[in-house]
Amino acid sequence: MFEAKIDANVLKECIESIIAVVDEGKLRISAAGFQLRAVDPANVAMVSFELTREAFDDYRFEKESEANSIEMGIDFVKLHDILGFGGREDVALRLDEQAQKLVTKMGSLDYTVSLLDPGSLRKEPKVPELEFPVQVVIENEEFRRTIRAAEKIGDHIVLGVDGEEFYMEVEGEMDKLRLALRKEQLVHLTPGTLHSLYSLDYISAMSKGMSHAANITLNLGKDYPLQVEFELAEGKGKVSYLLAPRIESE
Amino acid sequence: MFEAKIDANVLKECIESIIAVVDEGKLRISAAGFQLRAVDPANVAMVSFELTREAFDDYRFEKESEANSIEMGIDFVKLHDILGFGGREDVALRLDEQAQKLVTKMGSLDYTVSLLDPGSLRKEPKVPELEFPVQVVIENEEFRRTIRAAEKIGDHIVLGVDGEEFYMEVEGEMDKLRLALRKEQLVHLTPGTLHSLYSLDYISAMSKGMSHAANITLNLGKDYPLQVEFELAEGKGKVSYLLAPRIESE
Amino acid sequence: MFEAKIDANVLKECIESIIAVVDEGKLRISAAGFQLRAVDPANVAMVSFELTREAFDDYRFEKESEANSIEMGIDFVKLHDILGFGGREDVALRLDEQAQKLVTKMGSLDYTVSLLDPGSLRKEPKVPELEFPVQVVIENEEFRRTIRAAEKIGDHIVLGVDGEEFYMEVEGEMDKLRLALRKEQLVHLTPGTLHSLYSLDYISAMSKGMSHAANITLNLGKDYPLQVEFELAEGKGKVSYLLAPRIESE
Repeated sequence: MFEAKIDANVLKECIESIIAVVDEGKLRISAAGFQLRAVDPANVAMVSFELTREAFDDYRFEKESEANSIEMGIDFVKLHDILGFGGREDVALRLDEQAQKLVTKMGSLDYTVSLLDPGSLRKEPKVPELEFPVQVVIENEEFRRTIRAAEKIGDHIVLGVDGEEFYMEVEGEMDKLRLALRKEQLVHLTPGTLHSLYSLDYISAMSKGMSHAANITLNLGKDYPLQVEFELAEGKGKVSYLLAPRIESE
Repeated sequence: MFEAKIDANVLKECIESIIAVVDEGKLRISAAGFQLRAVDPANVAMVSFELTREAFDDYRFEKESEANSIEMGIDFVKLHDILGFGGREDVALRLDEQAQKLVTKMGSLDYTVSLLDPGSLRKEPKVPELEFPVQVVIENEEFRRTIRAAEKIGDHIVLGVDGEEFYMEVEGEMDKLRLALRKEQLVHLTPGTLHSLYSLDYISAMSKGMSHAANITLNLGKDYPLQVEFELAEGKGKVSYLLAPRIESE
Repeated sequence: MFEAKIDANVLKECIESIIAVVDEGKLRISAAGFQLRAVDPANVAMVSFELTREAFDDYRFEKESEANSIEMGIDFVKLHDILGFGGREDVALRLDEQAQKLVTKMGSLDYTVSLLDPGSLRKEPKVPELEFPVQVVIENEEFRRTIRAAEKIGDHIVLGVDGEEFYMEVEGEMDKLRLALRKEQLVHLTPGTLHSLYSLDYISAMSKGMSHAANITLNLGKDYPLQVEFELAEGKGKVSYLLAPRIESE
């Protein structure tokens, strides 16, 4: 059995970080908290999400079988919509394993959702083994503002490091946008010389999913996947996005 | 002749309560104030509206014939649009019976609208004689928030009373939303056991029309019309909606 | 060479006044500041824009040839979009004449735009010699509010003076909107008796371009073009719109 309470805004923030990549997925509940890993339908982006039980009030999880965790197939977009109407209250969650339903209680309002059949959902992906030569920690607002401007210019964006400078660059037919931040303007930078090209659509979606983070960590390589990491719920949650690079056609 | 002044926001609020059900209708003016009764084109919903002369400044009404009242055919949607641009001023209304025009004066801005031919408008409906076994008085914000969430789930909503509990319930294919309020969480409740099903589209529209009310009164029966009553203009106005039930297909 | 700094919001305000009439145009830079004159594609409206160098910080302009000014072909809509993402900072502008690019620097964000070929842009129009018998200075908010209401009623608007009263009037099929302001309600009025009819679409667009002005000056004649004048950037900028009249079909 599973039962817990959580601040409605914290739960919304968590779901926003997930729906930046997938609409629905398998949320794994254990004695330690929530965990999810999912890839988008086009196999281009992955989200790994963790929320420890410390983010909840009255977290109760009891094994009813040998398993150490329970898998719930959830339509996150729907759940997010409903949470938006609950006001600023706490949300009580309760899993009805027999009926395969999740009951969400906000004040006097009960929202009961049938769980999706986990068999109908994509398999939980393996996290590929990656080594990132470069790590950049940047103020989230600077990153997000650049992404919003970039959307006006083109479809792809370059993220790279040139010596002690991190840069983001997007080119349109007539124009070019470039953010350049020196080491001292960043929270952290591994110097290096490398860059990769990414689809702006995916990064835009991800940047919406990280709207509550203060700083974000970018792990980069040369023509290599991008990994974005940030914290949720005052450090009690952790999200990691992985995005495949695009081939540069130059 | 008819002439009066009224706070622009109060008049807007009144018109909003009317356009929740009909776009145009016959407004009846008498020495007592304004009055309107109209049904929607599909004959599913009715609005009864009253605003006493105490809501106005300088209310002047003089009979020019035997009649005790004057009927004005009005395009309320248009009038509402225009009032939105007048700022937070008073509105002066003047009926030009000869020319069949209503002159609306907001500051230096005059809006003159030709009255609709009352003959071209639907006949004023009779209010059916109804007896409601149950009355519930609920905080409007709780009601409206539930309706907004319900719109995400389904097309129909159940309103009912189960003992000393009032509930609203909507079911989708996969999920269910239920608001349940006990007697002590309500302003008033007649205990009972009954419920009716209504079209959510109509209730949504009505809930927009009552956005300024603090509390609303729901009069309910078993598979019976719903009557919603609330006050406008600090008690100087009164609105009553009537909504036909839907047949449950179970 | 040209280089300067300016408050991002002042530059946005300037561009808004231009894109009310044209999407792109030739901006002329000289030792005195910026200057532009352009007509809309339908040849119905003209904008004349001037911003003195006092509106800038560190304004540097040096002739590289005989010419006293440099012409830059600019996509103002695009530039406006990008400025919207820069935050509330200063913008540094730098012209790269060799490469025919304008570099816009907002904090750590560089936006580089290729200049449009001036040959591909419409020729700078001559300002017709006009004499306006009547001048009205009106509070901008009163004017703009009337225009917004007028859009709900019709497609054309009459601007006129009747003795010591200025009026704006729009007629729909069923209704009529009229703003009338006496001399003492205006900042200035030349008494007279005349009016002209204008396309509301154009005046609506212009009214968006003047959203930051406190007062606007209307120069009027009988069946004559309308000239609207207002100031930008605390008096360091000046805009003048000219709009051809419509023939009244009465």
